[in-house]
Amino acid sequence: MEFLVNIKIEWPADGDPERWARIVAEERAMAARLAEAGHLVRIWRVPGRRENWGVWRASSASELHEILSGLPVWPWMDLTVHPLAWHPADPDPHDPRPESPIGLGPAG
Amino acid sequence: MEFLVNIKIEWPADGDPERWARIVAEERAMAARLAEAGHLVRIWRVPGRRENWGVWRASSASELHEILSGLPVWPWMDLTVHPLAWHPADPDPHDPRPESPIGLGPAG
Amino acid sequence: MEFLVNIKIEWPADGDPERWARIVAEERAMAARLAEAGHLVRIWRVPGRRENWGVWRASSASELHEILSGLPVWPWMDLTVHPLAWHPADPDPHDPRPESPIGLGPAG
Amino acid sequence: MEFLVNIKIEWPADGDPERWARIVAEERAMAARLAEAGHLVRIWRVPGRRENWGVWRASSASELHEILSGLPVWPWMDLTVHPLAWHPADPDPHDPRPESPIGLGPAG
Amino acid sequence: MEFLVNIKIEWPADGDPERWARIVAEERAMAARLAEAGHLVRIWRVPGRRENWGVWRASSASELHEILSGLPVWPWMDLTVHPLAWHPADPDPHDPRPESPIGLGPAG
Amino acid sequence: MEFLVNIKIEWPADGDPERWARIVAEERAMAARLAEAGHLVRIWRVPGRRENWGVWRASSASELHEILSGLPVWPWMDLTVHPLAWHPADPDPHDPRPESPIGLGPAG
Amino acid sequence: MEFLVNIKIEWPADGDPERWARIVAEERAMAARLAEAGHLVRIWRVPGRRENWGVWRASSASELHEILSGLPVWPWMDLTVHPLAWHPADPDPHDPRPESPIGLGPAG
Amino acid sequence: MEFLVNIKIEWPADGDPERWARIVAEERAMAARLAEAGHLVRIWRVPGRRENWGVWRASSASELHEILSGLPVWPWMDLTVHPLAWHPADPDPHDPRPESPIGLGPAG
Amino acid sequence: MEFLVNIKIEWPADGDPERWARIVAEERAMAARLAEAGHLVRIWRVPGRRENWGVWRASSASELHEILSGLPVWPWMDLTVHPLAWHPADPDPHDPRPESPIGLGPAG
Amino acid sequence: MEFLVNIKIEWPADGDPERWARIVAEERAMAARLAEAGHLVRIWRVPGRRENWGVWRASSASELHEILSGLPVWPWMDLTVHPLAWHPADPDPHDPRPESPIGLGPAG
Repeated sequence: MEFLVNIKIEWPADGDPERWARIVAEERAMAARLAEAGHLVRIWRVPGRRENWGVWRASSASELHEILSGLPVWPWMDLTVHPLAWHPADPDPHDPRPESPIGLGPAG
Repeated sequence: MEFLVNIKIEWPADGDPERWARIVAEERAMAARLAEAGHLVRIWRVPGRRENWGVWRASSASELHEILSGLPVWPWMDLTVHPLAWHPADPDPHDPRPESPIGLGPAG
Repeated sequence: MEFLVNIKIEWPADGDPERWARIVAEERAMAARLAEAGHLVRIWRVPGRRENWGVWRASSASELHEILSGLPVWPWMDLTVHPLAWHPADPDPHDPRPESPIGLGPAG
Repeated sequence: MEFLVNIKIEWPADGDPERWARIVAEERAMAARLAEAGHLVRIWRVPGRRENWGVWRASSASELHEILSGLPVWPWMDLTVHPLAWHPADPDPHDPRPESPIGLGPAG
Repeated sequence: MEFLVNIKIEWPADGDPERWARIVAEERAMAARLAEAGHLVRIWRVPGRRENWGVWRASSASELHEILSGLPVWPWMDLTVHPLAWHPADPDPHDPRPESPIGLGPAG
Repeated sequence: MEFLVNIKIEWPADGDPERWARIVAEERAMAARLAEAGHLVRIWRVPGRRENWGVWRASSASELHEILSGLPVWPWMDLTVHPLAWHPADPDPHDPRPESPIGLGPAG
Repeated sequence: MEFLVNIKIEWPADGDPERWARIVAEERAMAARLAEAGHLVRIWRVPGRRENWGVWRASSASELHEILSGLPVWPWMDLTVHPLAWHPADPDPHDPRPESPIGLGPAG
Repeated sequence: MEFLVNIKIEWPADGDPERWARIVAEERAMAARLAEAGHLVRIWRVPGRRENWGVWRASSASELHEILSGLPVWPWMDLTVHPLAWHPADPDPHDPRPESPIGLGPAG
Repeated sequence: MEFLVNIKIEWPADGDPERWARIVAEERAMAARLAEAGHLVRIWRVPGRRENWGVWRASSASELHEILSGLPVWPWMDLTVHPLAWHPADPDPHDPRPESPIGLGPAG
Repeated sequence: MEFLVNIKIEWPADGDPERWARIVAEERAMAARLAEAGHLVRIWRVPGRRENWGVWRASSASELHEILSGLPVWPWMDLTVHPLAWHPADPDPHDPRPESPIGLGPAG
């Protein structure tokens, strides 16, 4: 499954910069491993903010929780997970077109 | 996967009551089939409102979309889907405890 | 009565991890007792957050307050209680179908 | 149980005044019967608006739904039900002081 | 005049419990005196929260401010005062039915 | 008592301009009478909008409701009434300084 | 020009009361001078809160900023400035009726 | 004075396209005259929306109301006016640096 | 540049289904051409809603406006465009790492 | 590209005034260099607040992030970036009129 995740990072303005640099380095290393494992697909900064949007993959919301809550910066994160469904106009869909369960007939 | 779904129904105050009764009857029939198929687990009314909370099951958000958008009342629905993850205190969990991917170590 | 409860937990990012582990252990023990007593029915994590949704049972809102405010983590909780009413499509209703008081006639 | 209910009424500005007068008359009659039956305890207008706050009593949220959704003006209502719990400083409590279930110890 | 008052109490999670117990005791004593003086009419807890709804009486908003801002817990309160007007369906109105000033004719 | 009232007017974009002109003329006439009677003290437009802020006087919220709901434009109004209390720095207070009821001691 | 200003004061619950008393005294002295200079016209407390509404006058938003940001309590203020325009029903308008620039014709 | 104005245009999806084209043409003509008169300084579209941000100049909020409410599209507009004050870092300020009234001392 | 775009579609519940089918077919055809031209990169449905999230590419916000406002369904769209900036952890960045203008030094 | 940027500055009320003065001085120096480089076009204070609106230019959202996150006051900033598109009524457009990509035809 794919998820759109918004992450706001609430690091105190007067937080220790060296400590932050260490945590960010750990975060980058973890992100690289998650990208390699196919969990992190794309990620962008929100211009001007300690905030980002990312496209993530996991087998379920439970697995996604394990991934996100294991990130070094997680204690300072305010996260919102948007579940994503297959769209007929997607140029590069990850998930297959779903079957209509019990003959519901395709939605609009 | 389990999802918590909030459904607000926006049927016009002066809508045709007979037409509404027909649509609701279709809706109830569909709900029964979805319950039988294991997709609809629990559903409650929000007291005083044409609104409900429900616990739903589907293999993915894509399948859930097919289910919900196939409901007879769907065109009058304002829906919010909350993805749900396994919780260690759940007395009756549906999904198994997730593995921590790539050795992330358990979350808080 | 059944209630849908959303619990956001506001534990400081730099909070003492050992203290938190102790409190969480107490919380899990209490949750097990509440599940056994039939008060806690289901609970799920909101993926990526220190937040959960739960289905709880109590004889009244007053009893529910006693239960929730007695939880070890309660001082760090931001709670919202949604009252739940019987729904005709509920596959597994806990409360019986209510009588229409003083001949009001069934709602839609 | 007691509930605090906020009711916003969305009657169209150009709605038929005679029809509205008839519906309001039915509503007043119903309100009198509900007051007599002990369901409607107090109700106030929000100054300047077609909106009111009311204190209502019902055995459960399910019964409250039957009461509210049976009101003649209900199709034009936008309702919010706030569940109410016993408070130690209440000069005239309706519900008895709740027992602390399974020895949880009194809340703050 | 009657007012509906919502009070959210923001006592720090790690606040000194003994200090809080002292302040709450003062608050209860003051509430009893205010009830006796007819200012505090009813008060309920919002289940699961340090928050309450109350019906209060005062000759004006100015007097109400003196009452509320004199409460021992006031420095930790986030208060919202909702002014209340007479309603024709009120089973037990405190204020008399108002005259229509300068022949405005009764509202809907 | 004095009240700060925000009034948003929701007249349809394609509403009949002549009908609107008639209603506005009635509204201006009523406003003049209310000003004369001391109920309307000051009123300003929110620049660029069919919205206004006004300072109004009435003996109670109940009387204020009668005044506002009697205005010709009322059916198209979305009104918010803010109750106002005496302030020690008010250069021209309308209401007298309130007594501290039952020896509460002055607020901050 | 006239402005409607809402000021929320965020003084910590455990703030030093003597320091606050000193600052408030300075604030009152400044308010008196501003009233005398015609900048502060009216001001009211929001009942139950450290918050106020005020009508202020200044030649421009720039001058208003100088006035407000010079107040002793300003560092603890959360301010919202609402610009106010002339209204044809104002019983006591401060600003003259504006000309319609470049023959735009009067608005509704 | 300069103002930042956000304009959302609520033209019905099925509105008559020819009528809209006429109104837009009138709007463009008016905008050109307002630009020439120095009232309209800059304006941008919000990408993807019938919405815009603009920098406007007027002698007061009252004059700005006359300008904006005279625009042909005004009946379909939902406008928010943000008053703007001089900033010390403005590369090209329109208004002069304001004097500090009655010796208030410069703000932060 | 890449943009994250949220599109809510407000097609009336009782809208003509055949007309909607025609418009959706046009929309799909346009989406295919935009995908081919590299403007539409990914798109997902929000489960249960007529809403979607998409990753779009355009040379500027101005070009993005032309693209989005040219979509057949645009008149029924409520769109929000989130600008996206390069992120050091992006596994597959589209835009190059930006230079720090005028020696500002790298951001956090 | 041009961007409209809202910046709220959250400097603690009891923050060290001398430290703040130093940071603000650095900020002004940086702003002057950014103005000279054409990145900062206009900036205004929100009257009464530590908040400003500004028109900024950058080649992309990525470059804008480098600029804004390099500002000395950035750690205390809560920033919102609004992307801006060309408008046909702009008296002084910075960006050229965009071409309609792949023959989409001009939007409304």
